[in-house]
Parts: sequence; C-alpha cells; structure tokens
Amino acid sequence: MVLAIAESERVRGTTSPNPPVGCVVLDEHGHPVGFGGTQPIGGPHAEVMALKEAGTRARGGTAVVTLEPCSHYGRTPPCTEALQEAGIKHVIHAVSDPNPRAAGGAKRLEEAGITVESGLLENEVATGPLRAWLHYARTGRPHVTWKYAASLDGRIAAQDGTSQWISSETSRKQVHDLRAKLDAIIVGTNTVKKDDPALTARDDDGMPLPHQPLPVVVGMSDLPDGAKLQHTALHLRTHDPDEVLTTLAGRGVVDVLLEGGATVAGAFLRAGRIDRVLAYIAPALLGNGPAAVLDAGVSTITDAVRLTVEDVTMSGPDLRISAVPQT
Amino acid sequence: MVLAIAESERVRGTTSPNPPVGCVVLDEHGHPVGFGGTQPIGGPHAEVMALKEAGTRARGGTAVVTLEPCSHYGRTPPCTEALQEAGIKHVIHAVSDPNPRAAGGAKRLEEAGITVESGLLENEVATGPLRAWLHYARTGRPHVTWKYAASLDGRIAAQDGTSQWISSETSRKQVHDLRAKLDAIIVGTNTVKKDDPALTARDDDGMPLPHQPLPVVVGMSDLPDGAKLQHTALHLRTHDPDEVLTTLAGRGVVDVLLEGGATVAGAFLRAGRIDRVLAYIAPALLGNGPAAVLDAGVSTITDAVRLTVEDVTMSGPDLRISAVPQT
Ligand SMILES: NC(=O)c1ccc[n+]([C@@H]2O[C@H](COP(=O)([O-])OP(=O)(O)OC[C@H]3O[C@@H](n4cnc5c(N)ncnc54)[C@H](OP(=O)(O)O)[C@@H]3O)[C@@H](O)[C@H]2O)c1
Ligand SMILES: NC(=O)c1ccc[n+]([C@@H]2O[C@H](COP(=O)([O-])OP(=O)(O)OC[C@H]3O[C@@H](n4cnc5c(N)ncnc54)[C@H](OP(=O)(O)O)[C@@H]3O)[C@@H](O)[C@H]2O)c1
Repeated sequence: MVLAIAESERVRGTTSPNPPVGCVVLDEHGHPVGFGGTQPIGGPHAEVMALKEAGTRARGGTAVVTLEPCSHYGRTPPCTEALQEAGIKHVIHAVSDPNPRAAGGAKRLEEAGITVESGLLENEVATGPLRAWLHYARTGRPHVTWKYAASLDGRIAAQDGTSQWISSETSRKQVHDLRAKLDAIIVGTNTVKKDDPALTARDDDGMPLPHQPLPVVVGMSDLPDGAKLQHTALHLRTHDPDEVLTTLAGRGVVDVLLEGGATVAGAFLRAGRIDRVLAYIAPALLGNGPAAVLDAGVSTITDAVRLTVEDVTMSGPDLRISAVPQT
Repeated sequence: MVLAIAESERVRGTTSPNPPVGCVVLDEHGHPVGFGGTQPIGGPHAEVMALKEAGTRARGGTAVVTLEPCSHYGRTPPCTEALQEAGIKHVIHAVSDPNPRAAGGAKRLEEAGITVESGLLENEVATGPLRAWLHYARTGRPHVTWKYAASLDGRIAAQDGTSQWISSETSRKQVHDLRAKLDAIIVGTNTVKKDDPALTARDDDGMPLPHQPLPVVVGMSDLPDGAKLQHTALHLRTHDPDEVLTTLAGRGVVDVLLEGGATVAGAFLRAGRIDRVLAYIAPALLGNGPAAVLDAGVSTITDAVRLTVEDVTMSGPDLRISAVPQT
C-alpha cells in the first residue's frame, strides 16, 4: 500500500475531477509486477495501468489500490471487470468509494470470487492524496487549503509592506511543489495589485514544473494593465466564496490553494469554506505590519475559529503547521 | 548526570543569585549514595548536600555535578575542600564555571590528586537549569524569557478584548509551573489596569506553589486602587528595560519572565533585552484583536528580529515554541 500511495502522489494534481488513485499489482508469489496511477481525464484508471504493466503475471495475484475499484461505466469501463479479466484473486484497498455511482466495486468483486480487504492505511490515504477528492465527492465543493506565510507574531509583511523572503527558501520551494499538485490557486485583486504574482509552479531554477494550476483572481476591480495574471487568470467578479467554488467545481477543479490576501482569507473563513490551514511561520518578530487574516467574523474569544493541529514540521528554519477547522 | 540535572531542576528558582546546581555522589562501586541541590542563599552548595547524605560511603567515590565545583570562600567554604575531605577520587561536571572568582575548581581538585572530567551533557545543562544563571554570570543582567499566548494568526485577544482561555488548560498549568521556578515576573502598567493579574504560581486547585516569583510592574502610572498587585509588586517607574534589569540584578534576580503586554514586550525587544521567546500558539484564528508585540523597532522586512527555534512541543492542543534571538 505504501507503494500504491507513492503512485497516487505521483499523479496528484493531474487527474481532477477524477481521484488520483495509485495501484500496485502483485503476482501470485507476492512480488510487485505492475505499478499505475490514474491518467488524466478520459485516460485509464490506476488499476488498468498497473494491470497493463503486469501482463499475464497478474494471474492469481493481488491488486493493492488506494481507492475501492469502480464498478460503473463512466468514461472508461469498470475496473472491477479489468481485475476479473486479468485473473486477480485478491484486492486490498485503503478507502471505500463514497461516490454512490462508482461504489459497490467490492461487492461486485466478491460476487466474482475475488477476496476483498478494505481499510489498509485508510487514514494515510484519506488525509493524504485522496483528501481533496473525498471532500469534493462528499460536498460537491472543491477542497480549500488556505496557505500563508507569517512571522511568529502573525505579520505577513513589515510596516512598509515588504514581505519578500519572510519565509525561508525551503518553504518557498515547498509551496512551488505544492502548487504543482493542485488544480487552482485563488488570490484577491489586491494581492495582484500589490505583488503582481505569476502563481506558477516553478522548480529550483525558476523553470515551470510540468503541471500548472489554474490561477484565479477574485474581486470586482479590473486587473492592472500588464499584470502577470492579466491574460492567464480566471477572473471571478464576485465577493462570494461559494460562487467562486461553484464555478471552479463546474470546471472540474477539486483541490484549491487559497494564497490570500488577508481580506479574501477572511471572507472564506467567515463562509466556513476553509478546509485546511497551512501556515508557514518564520521564526522572526516584526511587531508591526499587516496580519494574515482580516475579519474572520469573530468579535469575542469564545467565537474564535478553533482548529485542530494535524501536523507540525520544520521547513528549514520555519515551522510548517497544518491544521483543520473543528466542526 | 541525568540524576544530577534532576536535582538541579528540583531547586531551580530557589537559589538566586547562586546557580541551581545538582550533584550526585557515587560510592567506589559506582552506586549513587548521595543526592543534593544548592540550598537557598547562605545555605550549603549541592556538593555539600550530596556528600552529607553519602557520609563515609563517599570515600573513594565519584561526584557528578552540573557545574564545576567552586574553589573560593564565599558565603560558604569551597566545595573543592569538602570533596577532598570526603575522600572523593573522581569529579565529573557538565559546565565549567564562567565566574572568575569561583573558577579554578577543576585545577584545585587535580592538584589534590582527584581526576576531573568536564563537559558531560554540557549542552543540556547550559540550555536547561543553568541557562539563566550562565547568562547572568556572563552579562551581569538577569535572563529574560518573553512568554505570550496568541492565536495562530498572532492575536493575544479578540476584538472586544476578551482573551481568557485563549490557550489551553495544559498551557496555563505549564505557565504556573514555570513561574514557580523563576525569580521575577514583569508586566506593564496597562496589563495591570486591564487584567488585574496576581502573577502568582498556583497549583491545579488554585493553591499557591511553595516558591513565588517577585511580581514587577513597569510604567509611570499608579496602579489602580484595589489591584491585586498594588501591595505585592515592585513598581518600577521607568520605561527603560536596562534600568529595570539593573534594579532586579541588584536584588539578586537572575531569571525573569516577561509576561507582557505588547508595549513592554516591544520595548524589551527594541533594547535587545529578550533572551528567549516562549510562545504558546493556540490553534485558533481570530482575524481581529491586539497583536502580541507592538513596535519592535522594525519597519522593513530585512530588519526583522530573526530567531532560531530551539524546541517545538505540543501543550495540549497548543503549540509551545521556544526560540532565541539570533546574534
Ligand atoms: N505572506 C503571505 O502569505 C501573503 C499572501 C498573499 C498576499 N499577501 C499580502 O497581502 C496583501 C493583500 O491583502 P489584501 O487583504 O489587501 O488583499 P486581497 O485579499 O488579496 O484582495 C482584497 C480584494 O479582494 C476583493 N474581494 C474578494 N472577495 C471579497 C470579499 N468577500 N470581501 C471583500 N473583498 C473581497 C476586493 O477587491 P475588489 O474591490 O476588486 O472587489 C478586495 O479589495 C498584499 O500586500 C500581499 O503582499 C501576503
Ligand atoms: N495573551 C498574553 O500573553 C497577554 C499577556 C499580557 C497582557 N496581555 C494583554 O495585553 C494588553 C496590555 O498590553 P499593553 O501593550 O496595552 O500594555 P503593557 O505593555 O502591559 O503596558 C503598557 C504600559 O507600560 C508602560 N511602559 C513601560 N515601559 C514602556 C516603554 N518602554 N514604552 C512605553 N510604555 C512603557 C506604559 O505605561 P505608563 O503610562 O504607566 O508609563 C505603557 O502604557 C491587555 O489587554 C492584556 O490583556 C496579553
């Protein structure tokens, strides 16, 4: 399953609105003989990719897959059939399919005499590569990660507005790698006016990474002439986070990064439309300057938006904190 | 040495201006037979306490001590003599004495035919129980830890000023335990006006812990009539952090906790008089409300007060971050 998760991570960001599934096929002796990840929309699913590589060695073997194999005819034939035809005897999956149209795969396999085991490393998969897609499958809304970089005292820029290099090179590199695994990045019009960001995913040498997210700008104002995003971004003239998310869902966007600024982050927080907070906290004090979020709709301490910390790691000298709102 | 460190921790907060030293005496077979920590000012040092418990079993044995034994006549006779008289054959210490008056203990012991080994767990001791005292011995100034509790977005209170329970019960309990190991706690006059704190160290049942730090209030204004600190606090009518620290050093204060508010924290930061930052970050977003520090003297990002993170732990649901300013 660890190898299947790696396959899943490899295709993350390229499969929406389909889930980035990973599959490893083991031969009858338990040796891995085929690896696969979901191909871009219309292409084969992970199981089919792994079976193709395994060929006849799949006969009598096991398929280890991050999501319950689908049993319906969509853009591609059901994976349950492909597994049967290849002579697979056992299927192990991490997460059951929440999608009523696709679910029932395990049942179908068992009816065909294949043993099915589910739940292996379920949590790792559900909070990892399939997190955004599971959220989307359950709610119909893209999953929103709000990412910001701030000083330990919560400032995203100094008094004079300078914010370059507030976080470390390691953290900025991590963000580029993250962008390359996402469907879209949202910013407000004011961030465009102030920072003129490109919102591309670039490698260490500044070269664009293979997968680029859709840049989205939210707000009524026109983008400044000559702004990097002027011709590349989807500009949504609204202040309503739900309108933004509905439009994006309609375009097959499942996994969104909200990169600010503080006004738009506040709007998404007030609407309850932030599903995860990813804070890069630089060990520095500024004592002045703008805050990470403006007006989260909280006026007294008991109304604070409470989060649960999922994970804390060091990112170079910075702290990287991943947290989810409590429901 | 681990046991000696524990002895040292046990007496921490009760020995200033002397260092909270811990000592374990092993008999000639290496069995621990005596434990001791520095007694309050004028009382015996750690070595003497441990030797007393060991009695004749110390003969031919080893003394493990967190600080190089002193060799001078101060308020008590030199520990080097006590070790010789007890028949100790080996001394192992963590940290060498930086104090020229007391140093030379190792040399004196070696002259008396005792083998001396230094540097064992030096870093643990120097950044742990002896940290404040070593800073004080080097600079003549008390060591200042600035502690604050804030939300993930850096607010120390909500818009309406409410801040109770911003951090968890676990964190508040930790702060009471910390207070009981310190010499003094500083706040600004405005924190007294707003919060009317008692600045005492209390246990889970609200009962005062055995050792209480000296409460210190800084600022020109009178304390409000009936304030809890009105008759207990040392009120220093100044805005100069160095004047505060000089006065405290004159009173034998070595280890200080700065508990706010944001104005006084800013003043200490600008003066370069914060030696450690202890941030309790509650996983909550407020989006409004006062910040942890006001005016750190930084106007542009390159002037940020850069810190190095020493330690990150969870304190209940909160993050506890210990960081030191880069020099
Ligand atoms: N350190 C970081 O992580 C980071 C990340 C991003 C940005 N920043 C900084 O943040 C600053 C920009 O922040 P900001 O808060 O001024 O700008 P912002 O959030 O990027 O944009 C604010 C604008 O978005 C529009 N908008 C969209 N939805 C809205 C809503 N529900 N309510 C109100 N307005 C809405 C409004 O523009 P219209 O008038 O056009 O409708 C509003 O003026 C920049 O200085 C940038 O450097 C820092
Ligand atoms: N969450 C936390 O960790 C925490 C901890 C403590 C306080 N707080 C909150 O912080 C708020 C108080 O913060 P604050 O910043 O208003 O008050 P503060 O820092 O406690 O006190 C400010 C006052 O200290 C005096 N002062 C001393 N040195 C000064 C200097 N160098 N420069 C200027 N003034 C100096 C001045 O009073 P004079 O006019 O008397 O000279 C000034 O008005 C309260 O609401 C409290 O709840 C939160």
